[in-house]
Amino acid sequence: MAVPAPGSQREIRRRNLSRVLYSVAEHGPSSRASAAARLGLTRTAVSTLVDELLRGGLLAEQGPESPGGGPGRPGTALALTDSGPCGLGAEIGVDHLSACAVDLRGQVRAHIRVESRSRDSSSEAVLGRLGALVEEVASAARAVELRPSGLGVAVPGLVARGTSTVVHAPNLGWHDIDIAPVLAQAVNKTQAGPPGRGAGLPDAGAGFLEAKAARAAPAPSLTVDNEANLAALAELWRGGARMPRDFVHVSAEVGIGAAVVLDGELLCGSRGFAGELGHTPVRPDGPRCACGGQGCLEQYAGERAILRASGIKEAGSREAGSRETALAALAERAASGEPQALRALGGAGEALGIALAGTVNLLDPGAVVLGGTLARFAPWLLPSLKEQLTCRTAAPGSLPELLVSQLGAEGPLLGAAHTAVRAVLDDPPAYAMRR
Amino acid sequence: MAVPAPGSQREIRRRNLSRVLYSVAEHGPSSRASAAARLGLTRTAVSTLVDELLRGGLLAEQGPESPGGGPGRPGTALALTDSGPCGLGAEIGVDHLSACAVDLRGQVRAHIRVESRSRDSSSEAVLGRLGALVEEVASAARAVELRPSGLGVAVPGLVARGTSTVVHAPNLGWHDIDIAPVLAQAVNKTQAGPPGRGAGLPDAGAGFLEAKAARAAPAPSLTVDNEANLAALAELWRGGARMPRDFVHVSAEVGIGAAVVLDGELLCGSRGFAGELGHTPVRPDGPRCACGGQGCLEQYAGERAILRASGIKEAGSREAGSRETALAALAERAASGEPQALRALGGAGEALGIALAGTVNLLDPGAVVLGGTLARFAPWLLPSLKEQLTCRTAAPGSLPELLVSQLGAEGPLLGAAHTAVRAVLDDPPAYAMRR
Repeated sequence: MAVPAPGSQREIRRRNLSRVLYSVAEHGPSSRASAAARLGLTRTAVSTLVDELLRGGLLAEQGPESPGGGPGRPGTALALTDSGPCGLGAEIGVDHLSACAVDLRGQVRAHIRVESRSRDSSSEAVLGRLGALVEEVASAARAVELRPSGLGVAVPGLVARGTSTVVHAPNLGWHDIDIAPVLAQAVNKTQAGPPGRGAGLPDAGAGFLEAKAARAAPAPSLTVDNEANLAALAELWRGGARMPRDFVHVSAEVGIGAAVVLDGELLCGSRGFAGELGHTPVRPDGPRCACGGQGCLEQYAGERAILRASGIKEAGSREAGSRETALAALAERAASGEPQALRALGGAGEALGIALAGTVNLLDPGAVVLGGTLARFAPWLLPSLKEQLTCRTAAPGSLPELLVSQLGAEGPLLGAAHTAVRAVLDDPPAYAMRR
Repeated sequence: MAVPAPGSQREIRRRNLSRVLYSVAEHGPSSRASAAARLGLTRTAVSTLVDELLRGGLLAEQGPESPGGGPGRPGTALALTDSGPCGLGAEIGVDHLSACAVDLRGQVRAHIRVESRSRDSSSEAVLGRLGALVEEVASAARAVELRPSGLGVAVPGLVARGTSTVVHAPNLGWHDIDIAPVLAQAVNKTQAGPPGRGAGLPDAGAGFLEAKAARAAPAPSLTVDNEANLAALAELWRGGARMPRDFVHVSAEVGIGAAVVLDGELLCGSRGFAGELGHTPVRPDGPRCACGGQGCLEQYAGERAILRASGIKEAGSREAGSRETALAALAERAASGEPQALRALGGAGEALGIALAGTVNLLDPGAVVLGGTLARFAPWLLPSLKEQLTCRTAAPGSLPELLVSQLGAEGPLLGAAHTAVRAVLDDPPAYAMRR
């Protein structure tokens, strides 16, 4: 071999273990043979990998594969475990806090959501309450034999790339708040993270996972990201093999956010600030926006703009719950065909179509997904959105698929938990069960 | 080893050979020691790789490394060869055709440019003429000991991803024209492509490149892409290690095109149609555009729009050369401070700023590069462009770098040749010299 390529054999093995887990995660319970076919590996190779993953407690056998799986003798179906590592998610909303524990199969095993006037408290107080919720779901997870392996946190603001610092969250009034120190205590209490990685890995053969597992457990991982990014990750994860690999996810809560997914990966941007679709100029001489610009998409299709145009009064942030009340009123008026509500939503759809025309022309994505509040109001937004997109798209042929998220308001929280699940799938040896 | 991972050792070796070539390409002549440091490989490993590349005729020794290269005894500087494989580039412009041969060092070794009223001829006639130019530069390259390894072709239109089909080139009047059949003859005449890849590679040790080289030569590769994409590739290549890995390149010739580069790779889009920044809605109720939309960027910052706003008459396409005459007149008026010209360019800069604000908010690129005609008029475009970008960018902190291309109108042609050079750097064994 011409190159020593340190770690390459170990790396190949780790990658193949990971590929097996991802294959089962995306396609559901599978036989060794069908996994081998999908991965382009030999059945012998896949059997060796599967045995390691079974011993490490990351895969489980489920009895015969469903008969629809293909010709030949049915194999034993392999599924991801529902009792091994789990990912924790947490979300800081403008009017709520939530936390959950999700197993490797994607099942939500514990979930808490509480109202919170996050803007009216100090960041320390908000993070303290969130930490308590995280401890709560972690403890519930441990009670059903799950081991929290990491925590993802969704925030309604910009997070500096590769850090846990919320640089700017206007709807919380936060600037340059590092989330890690305050949350660290809660996270460490969740214990039982990955049993160590780093130097001194055994270099070959079976027993790899078990040998790894003898090491001491470091603290579970902590990932912080923008809510729109995490909602897109959740979409990708829940959609599995049916989801296009390239899409733009647009969501609205109080602000409008978007995430760009390319080849199955989130686009971060050079500083971590990609996805600010809400500040695309739609009418450059339009109303002033808090960002300093004019006529931004948020001024036409943000929740406040839509409610204002519908003549529905949204109470101030001191009355938590008022936002949901106002949105429910809008949904009711739209469903009953009230003209002002329909005009407001039609106008928002038009603004979305204009902004997304630029996005589609620039990126040529396979799909556009509407999430959050936009998913809820999709029936009234889509006609004018599609009309604008159709007449403003430069490339010949069909538009990208227009999909409506099924995850509702839970997208960011699920995506946050998924970052921790994904860390397990990415590096199976680090998360193998300690026996 | 748990996984057979077919081809993995061979693949690692190929990748490391490739990394050595890229390292020298990006950082210039380097000693073995500095290459090893940059690549994180041992000196022994790098020496083995370098020996293979020297024997294969892809690297050459240049005598001692420059004294500025770092502390310690100067090593022998390694440079890419200037006598091995070379890339051919060709460009179909609205008013010109061009072709070039570029060696691995990036030096242009042969270049032809002729005026051509491409719109007034059949696609067969245009491609026939282009083929003759390609044969010409290939023959000139062979006369100086270069071996054409592939051809890249730049076109002012949309190319379907992974194909050689121009789906839509409005300024040429082309629809669904496959370039390959007509150009194939010229390309095959350039001969001496890569000496074969595929099954039966030797599996280990030195002599790898030589053993490969015994195979028969297939036809040189042919790549077709949009001119804006290729201009961005040229920027990346010429900029070397100084260039940000994430940037948006905006150019104007007759139309406005853009290319998005992420982590050093072009974004193609799901169908190959990414980069149509020219059809970003700037003023949604503005003038009608040929794309079917209204108020597209092209209606404010395209060459025709700027010339019209300056009161300069651009003659029809039947008079090739008139475009250059008109642009020269504009440059002269702007340089002399003529108010209508300054207003026209200022308005174009403003429209560019509005469209790019959306792009910057969405992608958070490290830089925006102005190319083609936009580079030429940058002094008069940049003030209003920057003003719009500054007030419409949502994320806190500085704007992305605003760079002006130094490649001028030659960007697409150089980028086209570079696709063929890059194929050599990506797969050194396939292009090793046959002895």
